[in-house]
Amino acid sequence: MDVGFLGLGRMGRAMALSLVRAGHRVRVWNRSPEAAEALRGEGAEPVADPAEAFAGDAAVTMLADDAALRAVVLDSGVLDRPTRPGLHLGMSTISVALAEELAARHAAAGIDYVSAPVFGRPDVAAKGALNIVAAGPGAAVERAGPLLDAMGAKTWPFGAEPARANAVKLAGNFMLVSAIEAMSEAVSFAGAHGVPAADLLDMLTGTIFASPIYRNYGGAIAAARYEPPGFGLALGAKDVRLVLEAAEAARVPMPFAGVLRDNLLDALAHGDGDKDLAALARVAARRSGRG
Amino acid sequence: MDVGFLGLGRMGRAMALSLVRAGHRVRVWNRSPEAAEALRGEGAEPVADPAEAFAGDAAVTMLADDAALRAVVLDSGVLDRPTRPGLHLGMSTISVALAEELAARHAAAGIDYVSAPVFGRPDVAAKGALNIVAAGPGAAVERAGPLLDAMGAKTWPFGAEPARANAVKLAGNFMLVSAIEAMSEAVSFAGAHGVPAADLLDMLTGTIFASPIYRNYGGAIAAARYEPPGFGLALGAKDVRLVLEAAEAARVPMPFAGVLRDNLLDALAHGDGDKDLAALARVAARRSGRG
Amino acid sequence: MDVGFLGLGRMGRAMALSLVRAGHRVRVWNRSPEAAEALRGEGAEPVADPAEAFAGDAAVTMLADDAALRAVVLDSGVLDRPTRPGLHLGMSTISVALAEELAARHAAAGIDYVSAPVFGRPDVAAKGALNIVAAGPGAAVERAGPLLDAMGAKTWPFGAEPARANAVKLAGNFMLVSAIEAMSEAVSFAGAHGVPAADLLDMLTGTIFASPIYRNYGGAIAAARYEPPGFGLALGAKDVRLVLEAAEAARVPMPFAGVLRDNLLDALAHGDGDKDLAALARVAARRSGRG
Amino acid sequence: MDVGFLGLGRMGRAMALSLVRAGHRVRVWNRSPEAAEALRGEGAEPVADPAEAFAGDAAVTMLADDAALRAVVLDSGVLDRPTRPGLHLGMSTISVALAEELAARHAAAGIDYVSAPVFGRPDVAAKGALNIVAAGPGAAVERAGPLLDAMGAKTWPFGAEPARANAVKLAGNFMLVSAIEAMSEAVSFAGAHGVPAADLLDMLTGTIFASPIYRNYGGAIAAARYEPPGFGLALGAKDVRLVLEAAEAARVPMPFAGVLRDNLLDALAHGDGDKDLAALARVAARRSGRG
Repeated sequence: MDVGFLGLGRMGRAMALSLVRAGHRVRVWNRSPEAAEALRGEGAEPVADPAEAFAGDAAVTMLADDAALRAVVLDSGVLDRPTRPGLHLGMSTISVALAEELAARHAAAGIDYVSAPVFGRPDVAAKGALNIVAAGPGAAVERAGPLLDAMGAKTWPFGAEPARANAVKLAGNFMLVSAIEAMSEAVSFAGAHGVPAADLLDMLTGTIFASPIYRNYGGAIAAARYEPPGFGLALGAKDVRLVLEAAEAARVPMPFAGVLRDNLLDALAHGDGDKDLAALARVAARRSGRG
Repeated sequence: MDVGFLGLGRMGRAMALSLVRAGHRVRVWNRSPEAAEALRGEGAEPVADPAEAFAGDAAVTMLADDAALRAVVLDSGVLDRPTRPGLHLGMSTISVALAEELAARHAAAGIDYVSAPVFGRPDVAAKGALNIVAAGPGAAVERAGPLLDAMGAKTWPFGAEPARANAVKLAGNFMLVSAIEAMSEAVSFAGAHGVPAADLLDMLTGTIFASPIYRNYGGAIAAARYEPPGFGLALGAKDVRLVLEAAEAARVPMPFAGVLRDNLLDALAHGDGDKDLAALARVAARRSGRG
Repeated sequence: MDVGFLGLGRMGRAMALSLVRAGHRVRVWNRSPEAAEALRGEGAEPVADPAEAFAGDAAVTMLADDAALRAVVLDSGVLDRPTRPGLHLGMSTISVALAEELAARHAAAGIDYVSAPVFGRPDVAAKGALNIVAAGPGAAVERAGPLLDAMGAKTWPFGAEPARANAVKLAGNFMLVSAIEAMSEAVSFAGAHGVPAADLLDMLTGTIFASPIYRNYGGAIAAARYEPPGFGLALGAKDVRLVLEAAEAARVPMPFAGVLRDNLLDALAHGDGDKDLAALARVAARRSGRG
Repeated sequence: MDVGFLGLGRMGRAMALSLVRAGHRVRVWNRSPEAAEALRGEGAEPVADPAEAFAGDAAVTMLADDAALRAVVLDSGVLDRPTRPGLHLGMSTISVALAEELAARHAAAGIDYVSAPVFGRPDVAAKGALNIVAAGPGAAVERAGPLLDAMGAKTWPFGAEPARANAVKLAGNFMLVSAIEAMSEAVSFAGAHGVPAADLLDMLTGTIFASPIYRNYGGAIAAARYEPPGFGLALGAKDVRLVLEAAEAARVPMPFAGVLRDNLLDALAHGDGDKDLAALARVAARRSGRG
């Protein structure tokens, strides 16, 4: 397929290359053009104007946040150009509210819109092994199949309303940050009773909590290894804010999310925003006098 | 070995039978004698007096709570009888404070005491496949080896101070209840945005959260299947209380544990104490108006 | 002075009449014009266009929320009209962020802007006895003196940056909702131990907590009298959201505010948004099984 | 009346002297005898054995905590001596559970027991101006009238079951610590937006929050004056623990109390246990990076 890809951060870059490897023609755009140029030698075709990427059989967006997506797609006028793509595959982690707005605006413009956020870190993206949660009109999801298959190990369908995929993504990230907080408190608790963090987490993440999330973040906490960031703490704080906003809109109390919010603010106030999300463990340690 | 086993609830019964199967001579005692009698045909030897079980090469206790253990072991005088065992393997989930007291009292009485609480539900205990966390004097843990090997898939050593194993067990149960709460809030959140619980949890517990805990409790929540209880909600509430007590003794703030406490009280106040711990999900649902 | 007054809800209407009584010429505007017409017989002069009110020696705004203020003042173009007022006295409860934006926009337009939100319910406003917190350029606050004196018992100065007055207002409302939540939990606690709410609150709000806030809301809780609303629960929820947003911008963890957020959502999900803020007490009662 | 007074801390000493001033004969006992001796010149009669004080027309206890009261009254055998008093007025801040146990034990021993904890700091006690909450058999409360009138400005009756007075005392202390936490978060919030603590609290505690509690603790927070302690932080932490225990027994979720628990542990872990309870404000400041 003839694909435009917008947003070449660490995740986007790896995903765009997966598309190239699968034989698609891929035009790539990024706000800072060096990231696009860097992919020229890898088989992708850099373009300077987002409108050139938002065209073709399908456009894929993997932008940083609501503001970036709003600027590039909604406020730029690209939805109304004659060259607009047949399909927009929105893979960024964005708010439920923006996903709803995007669905309405695309419907009005006559473009199929599929929300398809992903689970997996850059190394997983590089292998084309992401887990993708997709929601949108059935025919559109089907047409996106070859692209989704190139980027992910599996696509999990969540029905026809795009925003549902974003709700799932936010729910998953909420559970992820909750798991880190639970480990953080457990480590401070056990540590105060003489148990080393590594001993505790080796056991728990090797048995009843033997899942990728617990192993990755548990390993980082046990080793107090918070740099370089895989998933930055400030980004995690942003995602928790999106969770709280969507929870408020639907009137769902989420006391764990409230605790996460405060502890992430505590971490940000202590200068850990650029560290890995695992650095949330430093908050529990500091509060117990062991920081 | 010649072993006495005290406490034949669903876990204890399965563990005692593992010892029988491994060829040990096992005297069994339970407060309500029927549970002991029921094991006569299985190769165990029921005794009527706890002092008869608290004897031999080793005694194993798997009692309900602090009060039961205190009554049977500390207040009964068995520690000072000439027939006292060479080793006491304490496998109950008890408070850190009681574990410390037990260690001191056994040392004074000249009996080796090893704390060895377990992770795993009754079906895992029946296969002798528990994960056991053991702490106590090195030589004593070694002597207990054949017993531990009969009951567990693996024994994780946590040093010479028995109470540390109890801190680890409580830390693990705290993480377990936290995982259930996180799933509960995520399900209410996603449900309010139109995503069925089963769809959400199938995806998450099949990918980044693919661990036994998440699959078991996630499956129960997705199916709203809270009976019969595997791990009763009232018992979980007791464990969270033990966590909070030990955290307070060591001055460790644990905001997640505080949320768990309130939500478990909410569940108890609404009559769900005899249901499975997964019924914690009903609290988040009720609070969001979907209960 | 020649004053325009925009926003004639229960508070605004009472404040505008205070200005009339003090001898000022007062043009009044409201989105639904009946509220303005109703003041014609009281000595105020209804106008149909907000631009006619946003003119004269000073304009006073007492609008419902950020959106209303943004629509009427920022997006309408009134700041750039030749008839713009010499001073804008913003008395609405709005976000700190909007107050900062208003300050910048007014400075650019050459209009003095003073933030002057108020404490007090409609009956206090009717007596011209509000407590007003004012911040803005010193000369502007001084010129506003006759207006502030007409509406309030006292004006508390908070310096030259308008947004500080809004931070003070939000801090005060946060403390107010916190006081209600504390009484709510205390009533459920004592009630579960056999103590009637009225007996508990009569004593506490008559002694160490003898302040207007505790007496008013304590009386309502003791009598379970939640209608008609003095301060609506949904409005209180909005104010707590403004607190959380401004706290997040400044990286200030506020665990009490997080609890308030969840409990207010619980109340909204159970249909109590149109009741008085005191109905927050129903959440604690319901959660303890006494709702 | 012929009265024995046990427990001569700062509060007890002032209360005993109020009884002396009112013309009662007062035997005084304290664990460290110097405190009793110091009152000899003031008209009280020091005794060396608690049994000598727990005698006469009435005995008053104002001991430090559950453990002290249990040791002096329940485990010492004084309830069964022929010289036991006609009435026991228990004024200590103790657990609801212990109050229930005391009521039962006194009933069995044939001694009237009245729970009568107090609100007020030592300077208020010195003026005989405490607020006393009393519960117990009506005739006994009536007989205690002259003593209560000597120590307090007013006695608030809470019925015939002694433990209810203790529930009221704990509810009041919970509201007190909640007020301090609310002020602490408000001060950090407003401070982060440029508003000095003193300016904020002068206004709020001079208007809608004009009550003794807010003025006293607000003044201390505004001045960062945490020593000497009026009400020690570690004692406040103990009271919050008693609240949580009694709440758990009655299955009452109390999210504010959970937050208080964590923040008090944070304060204790940072060495502020001997400071005044107002030092709770240091936790919010530290967490926002301003500590």
